[in-house]
Amino acid sequence: MTRSIDDDELASAWHDLMGRYHRITCALDRCLTTEHDLTVSEFEVLQELYAAGPHSEPLRMSELGERVHLSQSAFSRLITRLEQAGLVERATCADDRRSNWTRITEAGAQRYLEARPTQRAVLRDMGALGAH
Amino acid sequence: MTRSIDDDELASAWHDLMGRYHRITCALDRCLTTEHDLTVSEFEVLQELYAAGPHSEPLRMSELGERVHLSQSAFSRLITRLEQAGLVERATCADDRRSNWTRITEAGAQRYLEARPTQRAVLRDMGALGAH
Repeated sequence: MTRSIDDDELASAWHDLMGRYHRITCALDRCLTTEHDLTVSEFEVLQELYAAGPHSEPLRMSELGERVHLSQSAFSRLITRLEQAGLVERATCADDRRSNWTRITEAGAQRYLEARPTQRAVLRDMGALGAH
Repeated sequence: MTRSIDDDELASAWHDLMGRYHRITCALDRCLTTEHDLTVSEFEVLQELYAAGPHSEPLRMSELGERVHLSQSAFSRLITRLEQAGLVERATCADDRRSNWTRITEAGAQRYLEARPTQRAVLRDMGALGAH
């Protein structure tokens, strides 16, 4: 079913999307911070790193930053916090020494796996899929 | 068509929603700032105030802040900026003197109407309705 939509429908759909995004982010931040001491963005970073591979494959920092939609400075602060908490570590890569890489630690993987059911439960409660 | 979705589909849908939100916000901010000297949030505030009524009906600040999903401090700074630019003004309300109210000025309405086609065009280009 395709039909052309008018400008006000478009603006209204965007307003709904913003509302859904903010409500879910707010609920996730509250639960993840209280129960697992992780912000939404920290959880997303751990999730990307965990998904990178079963042997804690390192990811290029620039690529990871883009995937989690943070500005370079916000991303850099976030990685420093996670590193100080022992959840991620800097890595070097023989093939590409000019780039900065990072990987998840065992403690990071454990924290992620503990937090994941909380994140999934919030998404389910909030109806993250909305009108899809 | 209803079927149960599993946790990973839910997380993936949330990741897509975040991506869409950030891509659209970024494009809107770039165009609205460059062409109309308005951030996305400033545009949304003007839009809510403009929609409040043809005679610049005032809106309760607390209600407006909630509608545009900003923290109280961020919202307060935003209103101050718009006020200094002459686009909104504080208002009092005979029925409820304890609340703070704000309304759009004529210059604010004009700026909003100039910026609206830009915002709508970006939403259309970005496919703001996504998979809906």
